[in-house]
Amino acid sequence: MSTLTVPAQVPSVTEDCEQLRKAFEGWGTNEQLIISILAHRNAAQRKLIRQTYADTYGEDLLKSLDKELTNDFERVVMLWTLDPAERDAFLANEATKRWTSSNQVLMEIACTRSSKQLLEARQAYHARFKKSLEEDVGYHTNGDFRKLLLPLVTAYRYEGDEVNITLAKSEAKILHEKISNKAYNDEDLIRILATRSKAQINATLNQYKNVYGNDIDQDLEADPKDEYLDLLRATVQCLGTDEGALTRVVTTRAEVDLKVIKDEYQRRNSVPLDRAVVKDTSGDYEKMLLALLGHGDA
Amino acid sequence: MSTLTVPAQVPSVTEDCEQLRKAFEGWGTNEQLIISILAHRNAAQRKLIRQTYADTYGEDLLKSLDKELTNDFERVVMLWTLDPAERDAFLANEATKRWTSSNQVLMEIACTRSSKQLLEARQAYHARFKKSLEEDVGYHTNGDFRKLLLPLVTAYRYEGDEVNITLAKSEAKILHEKISNKAYNDEDLIRILATRSKAQINATLNQYKNVYGNDIDQDLEADPKDEYLDLLRATVQCLGTDEGALTRVVTTRAEVDLKVIKDEYQRRNSVPLDRAVVKDTSGDYEKMLLALLGHGDA
Repeated sequence: MSTLTVPAQVPSVTEDCEQLRKAFEGWGTNEQLIISILAHRNAAQRKLIRQTYADTYGEDLLKSLDKELTNDFERVVMLWTLDPAERDAFLANEATKRWTSSNQVLMEIACTRSSKQLLEARQAYHARFKKSLEEDVGYHTNGDFRKLLLPLVTAYRYEGDEVNITLAKSEAKILHEKISNKAYNDEDLIRILATRSKAQINATLNQYKNVYGNDIDQDLEADPKDEYLDLLRATVQCLGTDEGALTRVVTTRAEVDLKVIKDEYQRRNSVPLDRAVVKDTSGDYEKMLLALLGHGDA
Repeated sequence: MSTLTVPAQVPSVTEDCEQLRKAFEGWGTNEQLIISILAHRNAAQRKLIRQTYADTYGEDLLKSLDKELTNDFERVVMLWTLDPAERDAFLANEATKRWTSSNQVLMEIACTRSSKQLLEARQAYHARFKKSLEEDVGYHTNGDFRKLLLPLVTAYRYEGDEVNITLAKSEAKILHEKISNKAYNDEDLIRILATRSKAQINATLNQYKNVYGNDIDQDLEADPKDEYLDLLRATVQCLGTDEGALTRVVTTRAEVDLKVIKDEYQRRNSVPLDRAVVKDTSGDYEKMLLALLGHGDA
């Protein structure tokens, strides 16, 4: 659920721009006026405000905000005003300038966005910082962090549902060998995580659990002293979580061929689809999915 | 100069498609007919033929060609019929299945295309092979080859003209140190080549020559036994060659501010612009550029 509240009667975009301009003018800045406008407009509305503002006053709204605001308030207003790709670019750039813990931010942007979103963030990075994201990530990091982060931020993963089970088995074996030997910076381990599609990684992680008994992140034991290991574990968690998969599979394919879906789901995830539904869903959503899967009354 | 000859009177696209379909039908294939059409149509015409063929016969022309033709003839017709991004995807895929020398193909595609073209090749790779280019490159290569090729094929370089001379100096120093120590697989050396913009790499290579006396590829000595070193030298040559730069700089900025261009050109390339023009151009082209640079009569 979104928490954003937009007034029932939204002022015209021209009016919003005039009010913002007014908030910047004169002695001091009218922060309350800025909040009353920007904090109550959705993404499309904010985008339109930025365009109109630039057309009207010949200056990017971001630039005006940058001149007028400071510190945490500036940061929250600016991040909120940026579109998602620009926001990622900004956060990533910030992360390349800070200490190691911000590697987590870079990993999250690289691993939780779709291929298209990550690409758009890289394009926004060019536009804003006049260089590439990977340039700054490479320059900022070194050693194992660089070995993992550079391929993650430059990935353009395949996003289809096709899964190669033979490959999943052989790569689960590679992962298990490397982790058993504590070879956490191994090139093949990183290659698998950085280049395979999320569907393929999911299949590999499921094979891992089936064959070796543990979830992979149980085997990547926590070690508060080892920041790289923490980053690696978080990477596996981000890549291995595909929360929308269940709904996507059932709703897009239920009507096509129920039997094939079930077999395919079990083959890929090594768990029967019905059990996954019961485990991960509840209420009407669960009932709906189970009905689509052929349980209960018609 | 293009060597393609297109007839003065090109048949309609429908007619071309009918003729192609006829060439595939019946006993045997009419290769001469296929050549007489496809070898004499430009890229836009071939693209239109593919679209119309698919709309009319419900099958991709490539698929028909694949079924009807064999060996080298199939390969040349198919590569010619593909659009540039698909062609790159196809060639890259082929390269990932072959011996080491095909790493050269991957490097060329990665380093000689624009950022947009490389991205389009990666997108075409998804569409055709149902996986990512970097997946296959990572899986196919290992050791130093992988260390160099993976970041090259995933690069999305910044393409602006901005150059940071301080950085060029410090990275020229890094390159010289690593090469002097024969550390050809060094992470920083690879990072510089794989992530910096071509303009920045050019500036770095010029600094290298100015400070250390040799062109960098003279220092990356040839060694027929060392395929990796050969690949690295070829990479540097591809990235360091920016043949369109001279024309681009002069024509796009001559009218803006002549003095600034000259200073900037010398700063970046460490060669006066006039001398670069005289060295690299001839005839009317040279005269034109020199005139724009303020030489000779108005």
